[in-house]
Amino acid sequence: MDRSRLEAFSDGVFAVAITLLALNLAVAGPGHGPLLRQIGEHWPAFVAYLISFFTIGVIWVNHHALMQNVQAVDRTLLFTNLVLLLFVVVIPFATSTMAEYLTAGGQDANVAMALYAAIFEGMGLSFAAIFWWTLGEGRTIRAVPKEAKRAAWLRFSPGMIAYLMAVGVAFVSAEAALAIIGLAALYYVFERTPQA
Amino acid sequence: MDRSRLEAFSDGVFAVAITLLALNLAVAGPGHGPLLRQIGEHWPAFVAYLISFFTIGVIWVNHHALMQNVQAVDRTLLFTNLVLLLFVVVIPFATSTMAEYLTAGGQDANVAMALYAAIFEGMGLSFAAIFWWTLGEGRTIRAVPKEAKRAAWLRFSPGMIAYLMAVGVAFVSAEAALAIIGLAALYYVFERTPQA
Amino acid sequence: MDRSRLEAFSDGVFAVAITLLALNLAVAGPGHGPLLRQIGEHWPAFVAYLISFFTIGVIWVNHHALMQNVQAVDRTLLFTNLVLLLFVVVIPFATSTMAEYLTAGGQDANVAMALYAAIFEGMGLSFAAIFWWTLGEGRTIRAVPKEAKRAAWLRFSPGMIAYLMAVGVAFVSAEAALAIIGLAALYYVFERTPQA
Amino acid sequence: MDRSRLEAFSDGVFAVAITLLALNLAVAGPGHGPLLRQIGEHWPAFVAYLISFFTIGVIWVNHHALMQNVQAVDRTLLFTNLVLLLFVVVIPFATSTMAEYLTAGGQDANVAMALYAAIFEGMGLSFAAIFWWTLGEGRTIRAVPKEAKRAAWLRFSPGMIAYLMAVGVAFVSAEAALAIIGLAALYYVFERTPQA
Repeated sequence: MDRSRLEAFSDGVFAVAITLLALNLAVAGPGHGPLLRQIGEHWPAFVAYLISFFTIGVIWVNHHALMQNVQAVDRTLLFTNLVLLLFVVVIPFATSTMAEYLTAGGQDANVAMALYAAIFEGMGLSFAAIFWWTLGEGRTIRAVPKEAKRAAWLRFSPGMIAYLMAVGVAFVSAEAALAIIGLAALYYVFERTPQA
Repeated sequence: MDRSRLEAFSDGVFAVAITLLALNLAVAGPGHGPLLRQIGEHWPAFVAYLISFFTIGVIWVNHHALMQNVQAVDRTLLFTNLVLLLFVVVIPFATSTMAEYLTAGGQDANVAMALYAAIFEGMGLSFAAIFWWTLGEGRTIRAVPKEAKRAAWLRFSPGMIAYLMAVGVAFVSAEAALAIIGLAALYYVFERTPQA
Repeated sequence: MDRSRLEAFSDGVFAVAITLLALNLAVAGPGHGPLLRQIGEHWPAFVAYLISFFTIGVIWVNHHALMQNVQAVDRTLLFTNLVLLLFVVVIPFATSTMAEYLTAGGQDANVAMALYAAIFEGMGLSFAAIFWWTLGEGRTIRAVPKEAKRAAWLRFSPGMIAYLMAVGVAFVSAEAALAIIGLAALYYVFERTPQA
Repeated sequence: MDRSRLEAFSDGVFAVAITLLALNLAVAGPGHGPLLRQIGEHWPAFVAYLISFFTIGVIWVNHHALMQNVQAVDRTLLFTNLVLLLFVVVIPFATSTMAEYLTAGGQDANVAMALYAAIFEGMGLSFAAIFWWTLGEGRTIRAVPKEAKRAAWLRFSPGMIAYLMAVGVAFVSAEAALAIIGLAALYYVFERTPQA
C-alpha cells in the first residue's frame, strides 16, 4: 500500500475540519444589538477559532513531515492515523462548545475547557504513537539517527505537557488554560528544531 | 480513464462524510443543565460517532486496497462506485437520526436503528459489487488467485451478515443492534486476513 | 499551467457539493409523529437527493473524460470551469429549496422546480462551453475526429433539451418536471455512446 | 518538503470554503411569502455569493500560478500560507454576516461591509507576503526577471487598493463598497497581464 492515498485522505480531513471551524463563527444577527458589541461578546469564539486553526495547521505540517519518511503503510499505521483523525474531526465541536460555555461563564466553562484541552492531548498522543511506530526496524526511508529521535521527542513534549497541564488548570481558570493552549500553538508555529 | 481521479474523488467524499459526522455532536448549550449530564444524556450521539467513524474508515481502507489492483476504470465501475458513495454520504444523516431517536427512546428508536443498519448493509453490498466486478477477465493488474478470492469473500461476509442481522435485531432491541454494528467495526479494525 | 491541479480543485468541489446534498436529508425528529410517516411526508427530499447525487456524479464522470484530453490549461478554461463549479455548488441549495416547496405544495412548488431545472440547464451550458473551447486548434492532446465531435454533441443535447423542457413543464406540473430531470440522470448513467 | 502536499491541502481548503459559501443561500421557506419575493428580498445573499465565489476562485488561480514556480517549501512559506487560508476560511462567515446586515439595513450594514472588505484585504496582504517571500534568492525554479516582478506587483495593487478603499467607503455607503469589491473580482477574472 502506498503512502500517497493515506496523505490525500488525511489532507482532505484536515482541510474540511479546519474549514468547518469557521462555521462556529456566528453572531446573533440584526436586532440583537450593535454588531461590534456582538462580536466583542463572542470574543471566545474568535480566539478559539484562531487557536484551533493554527493547532490543526501545525499538526498538518508535522504530519506531512513525518509521512514523507515512511517506507511502507501497513494496517497499524492506517488505523493509528484514523485515531489521530478521530480527534482532529472532533476539534470543531470541542471548539464551539468551549467558546459557547466560556461566553456564558459559570462552572461548565471549566468543564468545557478541560474537554477542549483533553481532545488536543488525545491528538498529541495519537501523533506520538504514529511517530513511535515509525521508529520500528525498516519503517522509514532514511534511518533516523539517535539525536534526531531525541530532538523529535523534545519537540513533541512541550505540547503534550502543555495540553495535560491545561486539562488541570482548566478547573481553576478556564482563561488560563486557554492561554496555555494558545502559547503551545504559538510555540509550534515559531519553533525551529530541525526535523527528524 | 485512469484510476487516480476516481480515487481522488472518492477520497474527497470519504473525507467530507467522515468529518461531517462530527457536526452531529452537539449539546443543547448553556442553560440546559450541567454540561457533563448533557453529554451523558446524548451518549448515543457519541457512541454512534465512534462506530460510524470507524466503519467509514474501514471502508476507505478496503476501497484503497481494492482499487490498487484495478487495471482500467470503465463506466460500470464508475457508477457502481457512485452507488457506494451514495450510501457513504447518507451515513451522517442516518447516524444523527439514529442517535436522536435512541436518545428519545420509544418504538421509533427501533425503526431508526434498522434504517442505520440498512444503510451499512447497502454500503457493504455496493462494495461487494465492486469486488465482484474486479474479478472479471483482465480487470486487475495482478491476477487474483482462487484462494485470495475466497479469503476476500470470507472477509466481506461477517460484515454483510452482521448488518443484515442488525436490521432484524433492531426491531427487538435497538441497543443490541448497535452492539452488533459496533462489533463489526471492531472486527474489521483488528482482522488480519491477508488482502486479495 | 498543468491540468492536475485544476482536476484536484474541481474534484474537491464536486466531492463537497455531493456530500453536502445529504445535509438536506432531515426529519423533524422525535415528537413529530412516527419516523416512517415523517420520511414518507418528506419523500421529495429523498427523491431530490437521489436525482441531484447522480446528476453531479454524471457531470463529474464527464468532466473527468473531457479534461483527460486537454493539452494546456489557460485562463479562459480556468474561469469557464469556475462558472461550471458555480452552478455545481448551488445545487445543494436548489435541491433543498425545491424539496421543501414540493413538500409544502402550492404555486411556489412550480417556481422552485423551475429554478432547480434552470440551475441544471446552467450547469449543462457551462459544460458545453468547456467542450466547445476544447475544440479550438491545438487544445487537445489527441485530435478529436469529426464523428466524435458530433457524437459528443449528441450526448450533450438530450440533457440540455430535457432541463430546458423541465423549466417550462415545471409551471404546469412540478412532479412532471422532476420526472424529466430524473429520466435525464438515468439516461446519462446508462448511455453508452463512445467518448469523444 | 515537496510542494505537492501544500497544494493538495490548500486546494482542499479552497474547495471546501467555496462550497460552504452556498450554505448561506437560504430562503425563509414555505409560509413566508412568495418564493420569488423572498429571493428578491435576499438579493444581497445572492450577489455576495457571486462576488465571494469569484474572489476565492481568482485567489485559487493565482495561488496555483505562484506555487508552480516555487523551488522548495520551508516553514515560513507553510505558515504564511496558513495565514492566507485563515482569511479564506473566514470568507463564508464574513459573506453571510455582510449579506444579512445589508438586507436588514441600518448602521451595522456599514460595519459588516467594512469587515467583509477587511477580510479580503487581509487575504490580499497574505498573498502578497507569499509572493514577496518567493522573491528571495534561490526560492523559485526559474528566476523571475525584474519586469515580471514589476508586472506582478502591478497585478496585485488594484485589488489591495480596492479592498482598502472599500473598507473606508463602506462607512459612507455599503452598496458602493460592495460595488468596488465586485469590480475588483471582475477585473481579476478578465485581466490578462502575463504571469510572473
